[in-house]
Amino acid sequence: MKRNDQENEAAPPVWERISSEPQHEYASFSTRLDRVRSPEDGDTHEYDIIESADAVTVVALTRGGELVMVDQFRHGVRRAELEFAGGVIDPGESPVECGVRELQEETGFVGDAPELLGTLSLNASWQTTLVHVVRVRAAERRSEKELDDGEDTRVRVVPVEEAMRRVAEGSFCSSVAIAALALHLWGKDA
Amino acid sequence: MKRNDQENEAAPPVWERISSEPQHEYASFSTRLDRVRSPEDGDTHEYDIIESADAVTVVALTRGGELVMVDQFRHGVRRAELEFAGGVIDPGESPVECGVRELQEETGFVGDAPELLGTLSLNASWQTTLVHVVRVRAAERRSEKELDDGEDTRVRVVPVEEAMRRVAEGSFCSSVAIAALALHLWGKDA
Repeated sequence: MKRNDQENEAAPPVWERISSEPQHEYASFSTRLDRVRSPEDGDTHEYDIIESADAVTVVALTRGGELVMVDQFRHGVRRAELEFAGGVIDPGESPVECGVRELQEETGFVGDAPELLGTLSLNASWQTTLVHVVRVRAAERRSEKELDDGEDTRVRVVPVEEAMRRVAEGSFCSSVAIAALALHLWGKDA
Repeated sequence: MKRNDQENEAAPPVWERISSEPQHEYASFSTRLDRVRSPEDGDTHEYDIIESADAVTVVALTRGGELVMVDQFRHGVRRAELEFAGGVIDPGESPVECGVRELQEETGFVGDAPELLGTLSLNASWQTTLVHVVRVRAAERRSEKELDDGEDTRVRVVPVEEAMRRVAEGSFCSSVAIAALALHLWGKDA
């Protein structure tokens, strides 16, 4: 079979946005209705979009190469989920500053200078949110956690191989956290 | 340092849901307000939750071991994104049936019997949606695409190593698709 058989090799063109109308405001996100025009046939389409602040997830590694993870009850899926520390970027804060802050608040761990590994889309189809992946090496517990009201995190220090096995077994299933681990492992300096 | 230093090793307890009130309906999702009680201190908290139908993403591999991927303009991030074929499960459809259908519609590719590899959470914090990962081997183009109105997919047949490199380089950044590839690669039968 020919590579990309019969496909247009060019990047898909941008759909012009004709209008963007705010809908509803919620505590941590808002909704809008976008009207867009297809570059193929000129037809207009409407899409509901969810806007929420960009966020950070932190791949923190101990000197022994273990992952500093967080186990907490999550209200969307109504069960505990194993994830990395992270959260929403505060106004004026950079992604790496946010990562260092969230790691310390949620786990009490502090490490070497943070690195920005890359940026993931949460759900490109109908959400604006981007999640920056920050890596912190030589992480160690240096303080107590400082949890926000309603937060109850349990720190789990997990070997990388165990985290990968838990992905395969289904007990580590956060898309963003798994993608962040992949970004760490598939880069040059894993 | 002691493993899980000072942490409670038990799984985080469930937060009792006191009420769940529908808010707004949109074309492909809806919102609700949940009131929940903290198992720690008994305080009540309110969370806005987004409900949307569970979905499927398809890790399709050619006989040569290349990934069958889809490049399309995405309205949430307003740019083209490289992802796997996939979509929302129709009523009465199983995840593997959905995966086979979406792969054929979006790419024209058909393969061997589909396998359900696992299930990812999209955003456990404030969304209900789960994304099932279906693997299809020996995928080959057997038909034309059958796109829904407003869909414009461009098929990209990508070697696994190139997809991993694109994650590291930042030109493949869909959390769900990267996590699905990790689920394939970190399992026993990659």
